[in-house]
Amino acid sequence: MSDSEKNGSYYLRGRLWIEGPEGTFLGYGRVMLLESIREHGSISEAARTMKMSYRYAWKLVDSMNRHSRTPVVVKNTGGRGGGGASLTEAGEQAIDLFRRADQDLQDFLTERSRQLSL
Amino acid sequence: MSDSEKNGSYYLRGRLWIEGPEGTFLGYGRVMLLESIREHGSISEAARTMKMSYRYAWKLVDSMNRHSRTPVVVKNTGGRGGGGASLTEAGEQAIDLFRRADQDLQDFLTERSRQLSL
Repeated sequence: MSDSEKNGSYYLRGRLWIEGPEGTFLGYGRVMLLESIREHGSISEAARTMKMSYRYAWKLVDSMNRHSRTPVVVKNTGGRGGGGASLTEAGEQAIDLFRRADQDLQDFLTERSRQLSL
Repeated sequence: MSDSEKNGSYYLRGRLWIEGPEGTFLGYGRVMLLESIREHGSISEAARTMKMSYRYAWKLVDSMNRHSRTPVVVKNTGGRGGGGASLTEAGEQAIDLFRRADQDLQDFLTERSRQLSL
């Protein structure tokens, strides 16, 4: 590889998460889970499409609910893994908050990558 | 926890890495390895203090060397795992490049955290 090819082909990549007093509140996996619950109207179905156990998905939802002033997901009816679930207004806001912060991060990284001198 | 306690206690956290045409060039672990090689003058000693195998440490060094126009680490003398190693000028620049980018990221996250409305 020539020097000129090496120059300008490096870029910054990054990931972010939102932390609260009790640890992670929102990250990519958690927000994808919220989006999947919104799509499927069910925690168990969302978990299945994300190839995670219902138990783990519920643990994430429970953590987000406890971090938030009002719950991000509410169960509608039915027993363990059986009933439906809906995203609340707080859940929609959480997705929006995270996606906007991530977009700003990606914009920052794109801009900052231009200053890399390698 | 009261609403007022919940407000203002959320913040953005993030990690970054520098990617080149062949994958990751620099990340936190790789830069810590470079700093440890600078401190110890030896890949094997640096690996030991970071609790990684010599084989893995060398793999990371080799990857960084292949990404860089000039090597970031050179072996001085001796056989496999035996001889000393030094950071080159390119290695110093790599550490500096990464640490400055990371500082800028942390500044961005601190500033952007103030805009979180939860």
